[in-house]
Amino acid sequence: MSFNTFGKLFRFNTWGESHGPAIGCVVDGCPPNIQIKEEEIQKELNKRKPGQSKYTTQRKEDDKVEILSGIFEGKTTGTPISMIIYNKDMRSKDYVNIKNKFRPGHADFTYFKKYGIRDYRGGGRQSARETASRVAAGAIAKKVLKTKIGKKYKVVGAVTQIGILGCDVNSWNDKFILKNPLFCPDKSVFKLWEKYLLSIRKAGSSCGAIIEVRARGVPVGLGAPIYSKLDMDLAAAMMSINAVKGVNIGSGINSARLTGEQNSDEMIQKGKITKFTSNNAGGILGGISSGQEIIVSFSVKPTSSILSKRKTIDKFGKNTFISVKGRHDPCVGIRAVPIGEAMMHCVILDHYLMNRAQCGN
Amino acid sequence: MSFNTFGKLFRFNTWGESHGPAIGCVVDGCPPNIQIKEEEIQKELNKRKPGQSKYTTQRKEDDKVEILSGIFEGKTTGTPISMIIYNKDMRSKDYVNIKNKFRPGHADFTYFKKYGIRDYRGGGRQSARETASRVAAGAIAKKVLKTKIGKKYKVVGAVTQIGILGCDVNSWNDKFILKNPLFCPDKSVFKLWEKYLLSIRKAGSSCGAIIEVRARGVPVGLGAPIYSKLDMDLAAAMMSINAVKGVNIGSGINSARLTGEQNSDEMIQKGKITKFTSNNAGGILGGISSGQEIIVSFSVKPTSSILSKRKTIDKFGKNTFISVKGRHDPCVGIRAVPIGEAMMHCVILDHYLMNRAQCGN
Amino acid sequence: MSFNTFGKLFRFNTWGESHGPAIGCVVDGCPPNIQIKEEEIQKELNKRKPGQSKYTTQRKEDDKVEILSGIFEGKTTGTPISMIIYNKDMRSKDYVNIKNKFRPGHADFTYFKKYGIRDYRGGGRQSARETASRVAAGAIAKKVLKTKIGKKYKVVGAVTQIGILGCDVNSWNDKFILKNPLFCPDKSVFKLWEKYLLSIRKAGSSCGAIIEVRARGVPVGLGAPIYSKLDMDLAAAMMSINAVKGVNIGSGINSARLTGEQNSDEMIQKGKITKFTSNNAGGILGGISSGQEIIVSFSVKPTSSILSKRKTIDKFGKNTFISVKGRHDPCVGIRAVPIGEAMMHCVILDHYLMNRAQCGN
Amino acid sequence: MSFNTFGKLFRFNTWGESHGPAIGCVVDGCPPNIQIKEEEIQKELNKRKPGQSKYTTQRKEDDKVEILSGIFEGKTTGTPISMIIYNKDMRSKDYVNIKNKFRPGHADFTYFKKYGIRDYRGGGRQSARETASRVAAGAIAKKVLKTKIGKKYKVVGAVTQIGILGCDVNSWNDKFILKNPLFCPDKSVFKLWEKYLLSIRKAGSSCGAIIEVRARGVPVGLGAPIYSKLDMDLAAAMMSINAVKGVNIGSGINSARLTGEQNSDEMIQKGKITKFTSNNAGGILGGISSGQEIIVSFSVKPTSSILSKRKTIDKFGKNTFISVKGRHDPCVGIRAVPIGEAMMHCVILDHYLMNRAQCGN
Repeated sequence: MSFNTFGKLFRFNTWGESHGPAIGCVVDGCPPNIQIKEEEIQKELNKRKPGQSKYTTQRKEDDKVEILSGIFEGKTTGTPISMIIYNKDMRSKDYVNIKNKFRPGHADFTYFKKYGIRDYRGGGRQSARETASRVAAGAIAKKVLKTKIGKKYKVVGAVTQIGILGCDVNSWNDKFILKNPLFCPDKSVFKLWEKYLLSIRKAGSSCGAIIEVRARGVPVGLGAPIYSKLDMDLAAAMMSINAVKGVNIGSGINSARLTGEQNSDEMIQKGKITKFTSNNAGGILGGISSGQEIIVSFSVKPTSSILSKRKTIDKFGKNTFISVKGRHDPCVGIRAVPIGEAMMHCVILDHYLMNRAQCGN
Repeated sequence: MSFNTFGKLFRFNTWGESHGPAIGCVVDGCPPNIQIKEEEIQKELNKRKPGQSKYTTQRKEDDKVEILSGIFEGKTTGTPISMIIYNKDMRSKDYVNIKNKFRPGHADFTYFKKYGIRDYRGGGRQSARETASRVAAGAIAKKVLKTKIGKKYKVVGAVTQIGILGCDVNSWNDKFILKNPLFCPDKSVFKLWEKYLLSIRKAGSSCGAIIEVRARGVPVGLGAPIYSKLDMDLAAAMMSINAVKGVNIGSGINSARLTGEQNSDEMIQKGKITKFTSNNAGGILGGISSGQEIIVSFSVKPTSSILSKRKTIDKFGKNTFISVKGRHDPCVGIRAVPIGEAMMHCVILDHYLMNRAQCGN
Repeated sequence: MSFNTFGKLFRFNTWGESHGPAIGCVVDGCPPNIQIKEEEIQKELNKRKPGQSKYTTQRKEDDKVEILSGIFEGKTTGTPISMIIYNKDMRSKDYVNIKNKFRPGHADFTYFKKYGIRDYRGGGRQSARETASRVAAGAIAKKVLKTKIGKKYKVVGAVTQIGILGCDVNSWNDKFILKNPLFCPDKSVFKLWEKYLLSIRKAGSSCGAIIEVRARGVPVGLGAPIYSKLDMDLAAAMMSINAVKGVNIGSGINSARLTGEQNSDEMIQKGKITKFTSNNAGGILGGISSGQEIIVSFSVKPTSSILSKRKTIDKFGKNTFISVKGRHDPCVGIRAVPIGEAMMHCVILDHYLMNRAQCGN
Repeated sequence: MSFNTFGKLFRFNTWGESHGPAIGCVVDGCPPNIQIKEEEIQKELNKRKPGQSKYTTQRKEDDKVEILSGIFEGKTTGTPISMIIYNKDMRSKDYVNIKNKFRPGHADFTYFKKYGIRDYRGGGRQSARETASRVAAGAIAKKVLKTKIGKKYKVVGAVTQIGILGCDVNSWNDKFILKNPLFCPDKSVFKLWEKYLLSIRKAGSSCGAIIEVRARGVPVGLGAPIYSKLDMDLAAAMMSINAVKGVNIGSGINSARLTGEQNSDEMIQKGKITKFTSNNAGGILGGISSGQEIIVSFSVKPTSSILSKRKTIDKFGKNTFISVKGRHDPCVGIRAVPIGEAMMHCVILDHYLMNRAQCGN
């Protein structure tokens, strides 16, 4: 887990810039003999790709993935799987007028200060475009886990808050999530969310969001204390996504408000199955999966590219103003749903392999 | 960063169980020629050690550290620094009556399921006793950074919420934090917090807390995108601490509620210094430090060892009840303050070295 | 350094099979602001590419490299450099008749046993074709080191033994090496070597070779004991090259025969420069570079694909015979010269960065 | 595998200096539920400990190991195993007269140049004393492998050349090796070796040696190409041992002299067993174990601490002479046998776990 590689045993190394010829990743450590088709990866990518609704950026990308290695006669061979996605709808010209200015709240400033180089074209490597590679890697992890664990293994993500509007997570509906462009899990709030988002978009403004990702069917025993705890790696995974500022496991930040009695998830044995009366722990105890549903949520801050004029400086250290025109994304959080799912798959598979290594299960 | 080692270039490997003969750590990758004395490490350990006030566990440990290697004539040599702390006040007998039972919300259950072994004595490796080793490692990181960056480098942590009681973070007072046993940063709420905690303790209950850690004087440019982002590593660091369930960078989870305008930290150049009108980003943009104060907060859940009777199961899969007597910690969050500070030092030094490697600064 | 990635701070991740659509690598951790052109990488690749003389395989590959990321306006940006080389002259049909047979001394057998999959097309991932990616990564490392250290930094490799024929290493001639197709460093033996090789080729046989790689101008202090010793990493680097079976540093295996007096490289100070009367150490003491020339040599075994009929088994466990027809490489060792040079560059740069991290030099 | 840690999944982190209070290591990633006693580790340490015969250094060390963590009720728990060995017979005074001088061929010079610090007491961290920690880690790896694979798993090392004297490796005798103080495998040469060594010792000189380590019963399929090849990791392991200058796998450096016909290890199936007519490959093909005996040999250079006067410089850059008196080791190679065995166990276990992770075997 260093620089541009994520994972320990199941790893992926991403590369590519927003406006370069292509982006891609190399997946390493994948178990052999897993059947996987390009379509299965494409399907996941399609969930993330831009230009699908009026609520996200209008950049048009097919995000068509090509597998270059590691798969022979439809099966993984145990060697690196290299995948490439060519960039198409690059409008580098859109960025010329902010070429020398830093967007407040954007990584423009820190990249320039660190590397002494300004790749102004769509944010270069900082662009969320990198996350397409993660989704491709996640699709492979998902297929491996489905093959090894079976159908009961399932990961579902949703947007549970959009700006100031929340929803009732107890009304979570897997099927509805896939049917609406906002990945909203609660039918009753969807219309309200739509209206709110359109007003944000119209104003050239943006808003944040909270994404929740749930994993079911994860075996007990995944996670390697102390410094490869499952929740530690999930927190790292989610925090590595562009614009994420906070991560919760189970009751998360809210656990500070609880008493020991409120927080304790009591246990009851029913035949061979251990049940819990609640899931404040989010399915992880001491960094190890308990067999309960794993629940991770994270916040995505509002896009920093907005229409209003903001004070800023340029790369020569002069005070100036900025206002970002062109293609606009009112809520980047929405497209973070498939990314959060992908990271969940990758972390779980990594720990599945580590547990198999150390404990033989 | 794997199993029991934290860090990439500045690393520490911790070992030891709550009721074994000793605990300790090996610090590797420390720069040579740094002056460091055992007393400097001891001072940090004293902030964390148990039995210091009625608000934390009554276990009495001197937490006396001994350096076994890596320092010659008062200076680091660039070779591994091994430190050992002998355990003293172990009352393994206290645990005999819960020897075969799992505490709800505790890692007892998952450790047993994963490893097939139950070290019932005070939680074995799961015990927060491991964190003493981190504090020792953090003391070394702190000294290296003070030597390299100078006095302006400063890390301060505090408890900003205790159970249902918050405080005003704008009233943050470095000096007051060190003078009160709760690491409370806001004089005006301290008395209230005390009363609340005593009532929790009297009831044999427990409560959660939020800890905030601030780092000042951190140079711009630390953090290595994409998968060694500074915030990613800080999230991992904090989430690896026992009982932590949520981590925020800057406005954190709350950033979901903000608009792009509210969230954008505008920039103003004053001579050679870049100023920001706010710090929603918590000092990190695109995973790289911006030169602003770095602000991380995390929640610590309430102790699972409480007096009330709870439903649970034993290691033979039978339903039973549990009620934990003996030494009791009403709010483990308090002692997490020096641990959070230690992890902050370690992550910053790690990235300081990585940045020096890649960018030569 | 795990699975398909080599290096710690300067890393490259290779991917691709002999007969897949392409091969390539992702270079990570490269310092920013280094000028590098595709031609500079191509030049190194041209030294390794097949089909250049009658002494190596007749497979025709341009080995044309394309840079897909990490370079902006002619300079490295500090982000991953992805390079791709399309495969062209694949004759998978050549392999159909040995599709189910294992070549003695070849990795066919072990890959099949490990992964349960047989990619018979030219050896799949086991093919030495992977080494083109290393040469590309090495070209980048070379350019970084030339930029940082200056012109005095130079790496030169040569073939010092070919089958039963040696040469006089004291007659080593940098210029002659580049002028002859065998990378022979000693003019006086070249004609003899040529005749010998042609006879080997005519017989459909093959022979081994020893390659020596020398690095000049390497600063003192590179290498991180104990388990990142410079010689340890060089041994690993060279042993990872296909068909390599032995690695020497300086006097190497021969050092066993020496007495302490013979082996000791005496030191003499001349002004600011430390001179050594000999270089049995090969420029490395205790795993750290001494400022002397670094000398590594390694053996490459004879190609296992030969014309003579050999006993073997097939993938169904049946006894059979094999004789490999088609394109043939009488001495794979020759093309290992640029690969050894590339690995030398990569290891030195990795340690250059690590030393800068820990010691600030 | 970085700085002072060796291994990927089964790792050990060593620490300590020759003349500090203690040395030790932390073993991480060990599978749980393995029975292991301190005596089993002590037995291996006793093979390496100094002062056992007139052929090695006269320093007297019990090398008494203490386990501080990771083992509960006689079994590994899956948590870090910390082991400590206190130093006893330190005569730092012996080194006072060479305090400022560098021994030619010794790491004194490079450590000082790298770290700017001189720990003159017995070589500090460079001392071969560090290898005791490896032997302790190796004892644990051995026990795990014996438990998992069974009795057929066996590693035996021997000295196959001592200075200018070789032996007949076909006369290799496991039992005789353990009965003689030189770990000589060939009865017929032992007397000669003894005489030779005594003359070396009397002259205050020293000689090199070759050590060969053989591993039997290793399952087919261990080794993870490309950059975690089994032979690559074994080469790194052996080259990391103090004073090692060359490493061979199977026919090693000698493979350069062979033709394809001579080198090819033909295969014959006998029932369920695959046999090979020879073992030039040393049991490894394409970086993966073939099921044959794994054979690694390595050279150890002669001790640089000799009685004869040698030209050298001091730490102030002045020319001077050196002659090392006090305790003397005529052939450090002898004590490298148990170290080589230990490294073999550790590398094999590491790959055993990695193979279990990726391939599930």
